[in-house]
Amino acid sequence: MTDFAATRAQFHLPDGIIYLDGNSLGPLPKAAASRVAHAVTEEWGKLLITGWNKAGWMDQPIRLGNRIARLIGAAPGTVVLGDTLSVKVYQALASALEMNPARRVILSDTGNFPSDLYMAEGLCRTLGNGYVLKTVAPEEVEAAIDGTVAVTLITEVDYRTGRRHDMAAITAKAHATGALTVWDLAHSAGALPVDLAGTGADFAVGCTYKYLNSGPGGPAFIYLAPRHADVARPALSGWLGHEAPFAFDLTYRPGGGIERMRVGTPPVLQLAALEASLDIWDGVSMADVRTRSIELTEQFVREVEAACPALVLASPRDPARRGSQISFRHPEGYAIMQALIARGVIGDFRAPDILRFGFTPLYTTHADVTGAARALAEVMANTLWERPEYKMRARVT
Amino acid sequence: MTDFAATRAQFHLPDGIIYLDGNSLGPLPKAAASRVAHAVTEEWGKLLITGWNKAGWMDQPIRLGNRIARLIGAAPGTVVLGDTLSVKVYQALASALEMNPARRVILSDTGNFPSDLYMAEGLCRTLGNGYVLKTVAPEEVEAAIDGTVAVTLITEVDYRTGRRHDMAAITAKAHATGALTVWDLAHSAGALPVDLAGTGADFAVGCTYKYLNSGPGGPAFIYLAPRHADVARPALSGWLGHEAPFAFDLTYRPGGGIERMRVGTPPVLQLAALEASLDIWDGVSMADVRTRSIELTEQFVREVEAACPALVLASPRDPARRGSQISFRHPEGYAIMQALIARGVIGDFRAPDILRFGFTPLYTTHADVTGAARALAEVMANTLWERPEYKMRARVT
Repeated sequence: MTDFAATRAQFHLPDGIIYLDGNSLGPLPKAAASRVAHAVTEEWGKLLITGWNKAGWMDQPIRLGNRIARLIGAAPGTVVLGDTLSVKVYQALASALEMNPARRVILSDTGNFPSDLYMAEGLCRTLGNGYVLKTVAPEEVEAAIDGTVAVTLITEVDYRTGRRHDMAAITAKAHATGALTVWDLAHSAGALPVDLAGTGADFAVGCTYKYLNSGPGGPAFIYLAPRHADVARPALSGWLGHEAPFAFDLTYRPGGGIERMRVGTPPVLQLAALEASLDIWDGVSMADVRTRSIELTEQFVREVEAACPALVLASPRDPARRGSQISFRHPEGYAIMQALIARGVIGDFRAPDILRFGFTPLYTTHADVTGAARALAEVMANTLWERPEYKMRARVT
Repeated sequence: MTDFAATRAQFHLPDGIIYLDGNSLGPLPKAAASRVAHAVTEEWGKLLITGWNKAGWMDQPIRLGNRIARLIGAAPGTVVLGDTLSVKVYQALASALEMNPARRVILSDTGNFPSDLYMAEGLCRTLGNGYVLKTVAPEEVEAAIDGTVAVTLITEVDYRTGRRHDMAAITAKAHATGALTVWDLAHSAGALPVDLAGTGADFAVGCTYKYLNSGPGGPAFIYLAPRHADVARPALSGWLGHEAPFAFDLTYRPGGGIERMRVGTPPVLQLAALEASLDIWDGVSMADVRTRSIELTEQFVREVEAACPALVLASPRDPARRGSQISFRHPEGYAIMQALIARGVIGDFRAPDILRFGFTPLYTTHADVTGAARALAEVMANTLWERPEYKMRARVT
């Protein structure tokens, strides 16, 4: 069994705060401070350029990719770190379209994170030639996959409500109709068990600064199914994806396997923070994470619904159909969240009316859940959110 | 006058080392260690998600872009940080091609850094429709700009030899024939005065980990001429380039001005290191940097040529025609560089036969130049490079 008291002890969690926003930015692993400081002063400071070899900077995106692979049901050598999630969405989509040249439709849904849609839109505009992004309601995705669809672009877990798509069913339907799949695991990786190999997913992308706790601006990752590894051609064909980056050839030749999905120089300091976080993850069973996640979210739903009748559950009631977050709706959601934050409970707000709470078993406790539910009940019972100071703050998360 | 003794004192330079590889990875600014540690423990650790506002993370790419703008002759509000240089090359090229829709040629030269060529090649393949990357010899660029060229993609300073293109002349020729320009400033920014506004450059991109000393994997920057700011449409249309990222609209609308060239979440820890480096740059005159750069490079050429007749100058002899590096050719260049590194003089090697030395006035001294030239003379006089241990090492820089 995973010892969640032990994992919690490895994070810096400020006193007086109940942090339920790890689905937006995970907290600081205690070891990250010294790991990053080491990368700065001992590696960059002392090794200078030789750090690329001597400190292993050049291999870091593959090495850490292998450690993430275990958490998402992927084989070693199929995941690499780099760039932002949006860039990796583009990279995966462009490759998938090129592999399915007779078709012109990227299928996504209106519950997807907007940046994924924007990147797909930008790619279609760049491609011209009749390429289109088609979006349907989340519940219509599976039925909408037909012989026109080149690739599906689906975020497994909805960033607002936590609603979870059936990755196995959608992937099977896509393959049955000759489409490829790009899965966005932003709210899945580290949140629940993912089985990329088992479901046969073609591409997947995800970020590391949410449930994987790599810190603000930590790099994204991309997964490429081994069967496509020598077929997919990256549109973002950067030198570190070249077969021989240091030969400085004038013509691009993609590297072997997942290496070809690399683009430019890896963000060494951000990766150092991720490495410290993955040290915590290495001992963790995703099955245990899921069990505890369901306990925590069920408890929160129960306690909030008992105390706050004005809040409407926005997440699926069936825990099997959601990720590791719980959202409630209220027309004054923004101000309610500000009032709650003022009481030390950190969740976040998503327009137009969503109060969002992430439950992250590595450090969230049952006492946190009770404390958060009580604070929310206090805000609602006393309409504390009507105070003017909670109405107009800038919102950034 | 810039006080270069004072700027040197602000870097951590390991004892016993003469570091002439700042054109590949700049050394650690002493203040970067505490600045990064602050970002990790005080900002990420204590502010958690609120750091995006309270610590100014969200505005950091624009704020630091404005400080780089001064160094490259650009107006405030025209430069933004983010992604890798390769990704920014793609972003700039795709925008330029869309702005010049009747033409199909990206013109570059064989002296360009290969990743720029690879990204252009990938973009052309993605676009189809007859788009091609045409490369000519560096000295033929200006003549090759004709009415077929949509955009030129030129790195001002050659990464191997330091040869410098005439930005004003090439830009003028491009504009006269109806082409746009993308300038890669990888070996220019912080190396020599650049006048983006004065030359009328359309787009520029560059990296921060070379002469700007932001550390391994520091983000790239992109410049967009103000006259194009509401015209250029980013192909990599990520959410942070959206007019209202936190409205979470389903449709992309580009933000105003340079904001639209943002893509995803900024790398906060890397940017913290860059910020510390820019504190040093803020007091520095690029004209003074250039004067001293020429003194240092002229001294190195003189001393090496006097002592090492077997080394052939690969850089232009006229300092006006080169950047801030000096390269020599020798068939055994790789082994020679290894022997030199073993003596504490850090330059690097570029295939097939280039010994490369960067001169970075913020911290390189005349004594460094003499020391390096003497060590090189010793290696050459005693053919120390013939030792087997110098022949076969892995090469990564």
